[in-house]
Amino acid sequence: MTEKEFLAYIKERELLKEANSLLYWDMATGMPEKAAEQRSELMSYMSGLEYDLSYGDKMTDFMTHFTQHPEALSDFGQGVFLKEKESFERNNRIDKERYLAFQKALGLAHSDWVKARKTNNFQDFKESLSSMISFTKEFIPLWQKDEATPYDVLLNLYEPGMTVEILDGVFEKLRKGIIEIRNTIAEKGTPPETDFLYRKVTKAQQQKFIEKVIADLGYDMSRGRLDDTIHPFELTLNHNDVRLTTRWDEEDFQTAVFGVIHEAGHGLYEQNIDAKYSYTPLATGTSMGCHESQSLFNEIIIGGSRAFWQKQYPYFQEVTEGTFDDIDFDRFYRGLKVTQGSLIRIEADSLTYPLHIIIRYEIEKMIFNDNIDLDDLPQIWNDKYEEYLGIRPETDLEGILQDSHWSGGSFGYFPSYALGFMYAAQFYHRMNQALDVEAVLGSDDYSPIIQWNKEHIHQYGASRKPNQLILEATGETMNPQYLLDFMKHMYFDAYQIEY
Amino acid sequence: MTEKEFLAYIKERELLKEANSLLYWDMATGMPEKAAEQRSELMSYMSGLEYDLSYGDKMTDFMTHFTQHPEALSDFGQGVFLKEKESFERNNRIDKERYLAFQKALGLAHSDWVKARKTNNFQDFKESLSSMISFTKEFIPLWQKDEATPYDVLLNLYEPGMTVEILDGVFEKLRKGIIEIRNTIAEKGTPPETDFLYRKVTKAQQQKFIEKVIADLGYDMSRGRLDDTIHPFELTLNHNDVRLTTRWDEEDFQTAVFGVIHEAGHGLYEQNIDAKYSYTPLATGTSMGCHESQSLFNEIIIGGSRAFWQKQYPYFQEVTEGTFDDIDFDRFYRGLKVTQGSLIRIEADSLTYPLHIIIRYEIEKMIFNDNIDLDDLPQIWNDKYEEYLGIRPETDLEGILQDSHWSGGSFGYFPSYALGFMYAAQFYHRMNQALDVEAVLGSDDYSPIIQWNKEHIHQYGASRKPNQLILEATGETMNPQYLLDFMKHMYFDAYQIEY
Repeated sequence: MTEKEFLAYIKERELLKEANSLLYWDMATGMPEKAAEQRSELMSYMSGLEYDLSYGDKMTDFMTHFTQHPEALSDFGQGVFLKEKESFERNNRIDKERYLAFQKALGLAHSDWVKARKTNNFQDFKESLSSMISFTKEFIPLWQKDEATPYDVLLNLYEPGMTVEILDGVFEKLRKGIIEIRNTIAEKGTPPETDFLYRKVTKAQQQKFIEKVIADLGYDMSRGRLDDTIHPFELTLNHNDVRLTTRWDEEDFQTAVFGVIHEAGHGLYEQNIDAKYSYTPLATGTSMGCHESQSLFNEIIIGGSRAFWQKQYPYFQEVTEGTFDDIDFDRFYRGLKVTQGSLIRIEADSLTYPLHIIIRYEIEKMIFNDNIDLDDLPQIWNDKYEEYLGIRPETDLEGILQDSHWSGGSFGYFPSYALGFMYAAQFYHRMNQALDVEAVLGSDDYSPIIQWNKEHIHQYGASRKPNQLILEATGETMNPQYLLDFMKHMYFDAYQIEY
Repeated sequence: MTEKEFLAYIKERELLKEANSLLYWDMATGMPEKAAEQRSELMSYMSGLEYDLSYGDKMTDFMTHFTQHPEALSDFGQGVFLKEKESFERNNRIDKERYLAFQKALGLAHSDWVKARKTNNFQDFKESLSSMISFTKEFIPLWQKDEATPYDVLLNLYEPGMTVEILDGVFEKLRKGIIEIRNTIAEKGTPPETDFLYRKVTKAQQQKFIEKVIADLGYDMSRGRLDDTIHPFELTLNHNDVRLTTRWDEEDFQTAVFGVIHEAGHGLYEQNIDAKYSYTPLATGTSMGCHESQSLFNEIIIGGSRAFWQKQYPYFQEVTEGTFDDIDFDRFYRGLKVTQGSLIRIEADSLTYPLHIIIRYEIEKMIFNDNIDLDDLPQIWNDKYEEYLGIRPETDLEGILQDSHWSGGSFGYFPSYALGFMYAAQFYHRMNQALDVEAVLGSDDYSPIIQWNKEHIHQYGASRKPNQLILEATGETMNPQYLLDFMKHMYFDAYQIEY
């Protein structure tokens, strides 16, 4: 067994995965409505082939062989091998029978969640949630390496190296900082006008505007495309075929404008990964948090920049053919930056968004490390919303039933979103030491920013672990202060507060 | 080995084929331009998997077993087995080494053909053409069952049961009949006006019109879609996912209008095949000629009907928003039916089109049955055009270099197009004995026509051989007279000739 054979085998699996990704993309974007049953059958067959290549006898042989003979691998081969081994072991430690039972429970959990949302009653989901938690608790010891607590094991699934100890400290600081900013805004701020944001902007106008913006930001349309879906996503077939989707709302242009800027950030990451990692598991973002840092860098940092909008607004006005002629730039920009406490995570503004995540983090930690009674969950959820966001859900639907993650057995995933915010701000801080980011965003050429991200983040794909990536790119470990500084600066400006 | 196992195995192969079809569709319709190399690599890997399932050890075992034990198969299983065995044997009789050499030669032939088109010189293609012919001559004895001549073997590849003996008689009659109609038109006809046909009709207007028309004609958009490509095609993933493509020309609406009507005819065939054949090789049209009969039934028979256009023209006028207000129905309809001799097959009108095919048929027959000198080909080609169509190519590009078929090693394929014309007219003749087709086309409900095609043709998929299908549907074997009658009626009407 040679490295060459191993890499050729991995390439086969990656090719099959690419075919499967296209099946998914097509299903989400344009498959005829009546072909759902056939597609489900096809995807089930094809993912079976991918599963066999990923976890079957031949892969087992490679894993055994190169564990015993690490010297037979080059540094490159070793990198691919270790990444592959992670998911191989994660999977292989679970008994096949239990895996199938879990898959079955997942299906039930999803339909129970949908049902509970209809009845607006957490009780209808409780049993399935309990089952998801039981399975996860059963798997945690199998996944555990040297993590300190059960919930640490879950965090590690999505953000290798992340711990409860780190997050407790970081989130505490972040929560307090955000609440302090919110208090100051409530006390001294002048709320921006927002009514004009809901003027009609046609899909064609929005598309014209946003395609130019993401091209400016470095997303290469000749190596990608933009389609319509209900739930926006970025999907990578390979680094020359990185697709974005969005939902258009003609009564609220911000949905697609910020949505596409966000997805293009994911797309930039994927397009810019060094081609030498192609057809290996290293040819993707290194973690959910780091991926999100790139989409949020686009959405929050660039999309939050006054200089950026000052540059883009005239084109927006031109494309919208007079609709915003009576709105001067300052009114427009301030309108985009309104913030207020809200109940639904995916509708939250960027200042309050991390609070939604912190609430979920604290609750997940209670579930896995403190074994709380599930009957208490809605009460705990609502109390935390009241405490952190000053607004209390009146029903389960606007509270604990809003997210699909738990019904999908994804515990430990939520923190990635908040990590993305913090990483993005930390990259921004560091980038400002190398170049004047606002000046670049006010210019005709964003390439210094694109280049910085490519050089320090994108090119490495998953060959650097998240903590190593952050450390090498910014010279320090994760620090929530940069996000707080950024938010304070942006929101105080929008609310006309001197500081 | 049971029938159940065999059918399950065939289903796997069909699923893989479906995935491969989607890869092709995506490449043709919307893949990012710079992803071509990656896609080619992916398709090569995936078609390798399909090849292994189709011709590998396991299929060989099934073929051997059920050849020895036909009694182990139900009638249904036997149908699937025999269809599968056809392509299995066709492939397996060719030595793998020779197959690969042929694949390599194919690549060269294509690039030589492209080059010769650039230099406009048949000599640059001659060597590759000679190589394609040699390979084909080498394979013919391996494919031969009981066919009378080498060219019969090639005809059989695309239209099982078709022979030189039949075609010689049919094409002679057809050629004479068409030339007679053309002579009468030249003598007595009043040519229709055509200038208004090139008025601008936007893509959006054309799309609105044509999507309504094909829905009227029975194509189910909830089980299909319509996309843009350079070369239009119909592609089937499964009977609930049958996709059409077209090219739009805003200066010539006929390109897309008749193009989509044509492709929708293919689509109707595929959508209406009995679901019991799903995931077997019987779930497709039974031959190229029969498939073409359905697209041409739509394009030539329905698209040539005065009653049909009388019904649709007001909607066309409405959709084109006044562009054709000054053109009364009779002028419009007659304009669509102009005919004249031309050099390029794919631009020919429906009266002269079969002559283009007959020329190719006669030349292919000379190549394989008479071993003519390839140096004489351009001269022979040009002489035949002068004789049959009254117009002589001045260069190879407008003559012998125009089609891609020979560079793709596809000899014996051209006749299918002409068969499609004749089958379509023969179905029309028979359909008229069961219902008044013109009356139906002048009504709001085309379902009697849709139903007739479904009942007599579509539902059977490939479970009936072409000659059996024609015989059962029309009560007689192929008869070119119906096409001549139809053409005479349609063109004499358009050219205001009494008969």
